[in-house]
Amino acid sequence: MRKNLYVLKFGGTSLGNVKRIEEVAKIITSYIKRRINIVVVVSAMGDTTDRLIKLAKKINPYPSERELDMLISTGEQVSGALLAMALHKKGLPALSLTAPQVGIITDTSHMKAKILKIKTKKIEKELRDDKIIIVTGFQGMTPEKEITTLGRGGSDLSAVALAVALKADRCEIYTDVEGIFTADPRLVPQARKIDCITFDEMLELASCGAQVLQTRAVEVAKKFNLPICVRSSFTKKEGTIVMERKTLIEEPVVRGITLATDEVKITICNVPDRPGIAAVIFEAIANRGINVDMIVQNVSHKKVTDISFTVGKQDAHKALDIVKRIAKEIRANRVIFDEDVAKVSIVGVGMRSHSGVASRVFKVLASHKINIEMISTSEINISCIIKKKEGGKAVRALHKAFELDKK
Amino acid sequence: MRKNLYVLKFGGTSLGNVKRIEEVAKIITSYIKRRINIVVVVSAMGDTTDRLIKLAKKINPYPSERELDMLISTGEQVSGALLAMALHKKGLPALSLTAPQVGIITDTSHMKAKILKIKTKKIEKELRDDKIIIVTGFQGMTPEKEITTLGRGGSDLSAVALAVALKADRCEIYTDVEGIFTADPRLVPQARKIDCITFDEMLELASCGAQVLQTRAVEVAKKFNLPICVRSSFTKKEGTIVMERKTLIEEPVVRGITLATDEVKITICNVPDRPGIAAVIFEAIANRGINVDMIVQNVSHKKVTDISFTVGKQDAHKALDIVKRIAKEIRANRVIFDEDVAKVSIVGVGMRSHSGVASRVFKVLASHKINIEMISTSEINISCIIKKKEGGKAVRALHKAFELDKK
Repeated sequence: MRKNLYVLKFGGTSLGNVKRIEEVAKIITSYIKRRINIVVVVSAMGDTTDRLIKLAKKINPYPSERELDMLISTGEQVSGALLAMALHKKGLPALSLTAPQVGIITDTSHMKAKILKIKTKKIEKELRDDKIIIVTGFQGMTPEKEITTLGRGGSDLSAVALAVALKADRCEIYTDVEGIFTADPRLVPQARKIDCITFDEMLELASCGAQVLQTRAVEVAKKFNLPICVRSSFTKKEGTIVMERKTLIEEPVVRGITLATDEVKITICNVPDRPGIAAVIFEAIANRGINVDMIVQNVSHKKVTDISFTVGKQDAHKALDIVKRIAKEIRANRVIFDEDVAKVSIVGVGMRSHSGVASRVFKVLASHKINIEMISTSEINISCIIKKKEGGKAVRALHKAFELDKK
Repeated sequence: MRKNLYVLKFGGTSLGNVKRIEEVAKIITSYIKRRINIVVVVSAMGDTTDRLIKLAKKINPYPSERELDMLISTGEQVSGALLAMALHKKGLPALSLTAPQVGIITDTSHMKAKILKIKTKKIEKELRDDKIIIVTGFQGMTPEKEITTLGRGGSDLSAVALAVALKADRCEIYTDVEGIFTADPRLVPQARKIDCITFDEMLELASCGAQVLQTRAVEVAKKFNLPICVRSSFTKKEGTIVMERKTLIEEPVVRGITLATDEVKITICNVPDRPGIAAVIFEAIANRGINVDMIVQNVSHKKVTDISFTVGKQDAHKALDIVKRIAKEIRANRVIFDEDVAKVSIVGVGMRSHSGVASRVFKVLASHKINIEMISTSEINISCIIKKKEGGKAVRALHKAFELDKK
């Protein structure tokens, strides 16, 4: 009998080819040698999912989401079976299971399903027989046996949800980066790996463009207080632990800086300043399933105001159509659409108890002649919309100013 | 409401790429226009299955059959989803279902599972809603929800078994040839397409090397008297109907000629001629799961005899090992292994009532100076083992002698 239970998740790059799958089998072997029970969650190999979606769109530019789920859920099944074979070759008793076989039950929202329940009986039985269980990430099954997927990065969520359901001791997310960094190392060569970060900081970083961990996965981990370790399958280095705040000792003011360039800014000018107008606009947008990121409305002059917001590029034109229609209805006289924007965000729980962080951000940007177009702040996050071409410069300047390159 | 119900099966070549899938959607549309209910059974696209098996063997030369089934069953799921999308584009309400979703229940023999039961509730419900149902062929699920596959050509079996379970009016197997031919057209340019053939003849042809229809599928169709139509998805020509004998009007003596070059001949010389010796040999071979094709034992001289048999190439060395061991035990003094053989078979229910067919076969071969090494006959089949290089010549000579090129 092995002691403890870890859930390990391996992403697409970690399983990108035969050699990588063999490396992953090696990593798993090291846990088994330490007599740890293992449940592995796998993504599809490399760019399989994108390749399948491309194939689908060749046949039908608007494929049904239900059939897309049937199609793309095959990717994880392939990598799961191959990983099982690689473990067998090492003499280890592995068993791959699809999410439907496990009983990962979701709602019926294809392509972005929510997990309702995870049945643990099958996995627990196989673990008692000392099996290494491999589960297809990213997918689930409705109570009516329809196959669903959980949306981009959904394998992270599968891993965290399985770890919670199985009361695992730990959840380790193996990826192609060494952990969470103070900024994107491609933008800031001095960026440092963070050893320990809180759930809240990770959530802000994730929603501000750090694409290492899926936001929903972090939310679930936070809710059930499950520590996550993010680490690389390409090195043996320790990764980043994402955990509750109280257990952290050091607590810097600023934890990390992110840059998002996949949003557009839409401004409605001269909106009549009366109660309920914002609700009308953003309800109409929400009804179309569009997520709005930043919303800024300033004080009004002469009973009119400007409302700006940002949305993801993929939803930009849908949002613009809605806004133009409403602008007409409420007699707002102009809508501005701006794709040339970047959002730079600094995140850290330490901000809560440190005043002056925002003004320092603005001063740093000003001293580099970077104009700020929109500002939005929360307790642990300051985000500024700037011109796209100044994104890299802004991140480097702030990284230096807040001394994130120093331990 | 549509009337009638047809089960259509499309093979890998018929679904080989985007263009082919669109062609298949067109074919299906023509049935819908005739107000026929359709259940489609799909194979994996092109060489997907072989490609996946090759990938598996790169990781593990002896992959577990259970994990192979997990792996290769993804192929049909992909083609099913893509075909559904192609039908949606034509405005048709299609729905792809995996065999486990339908409830195609099999035993637990991975890679060669037998269908135990097909649940029809889900399909019948969707058919009542005028849906076109697409089912992944080649696969099933054990009562314990393990994924299984039915062995090579298993999609034919899926189609026939579904047609039987759903009490379909007809089962049409779409493939890359126009039907069943009197001989392989690549060997015999004069080969003619057969319009109508009995189940028994088809079974003999299939087991003698005509690889158009899977043998097990024909057996099930015969058992339940379900007519099968074999036709090409590349042309609009009528195919071949496989059906019960009594409904055929014309009944030629010889229906078709096949050539099999994937067998080897093993001979045990000087076997003591006492009861039970053959049983010892062939029981040992059967216990290793090897299918023996022809077995010939002649009268004995001086209380010893020679026993020859043929097995598929893939099992040749396993069979040889067993035979060598037994030959030693029973003091048979020699084992001959011959890979340079071909089996030419002529098949036709008309043989039952026509004498002299065998002698005519032998005469034709002799007149072409083709030596016969083994002979085996059944009611409707005469098979001869000859030298491999003379296979093509033998088929052409017999095809001409029995006038199969004439209507």
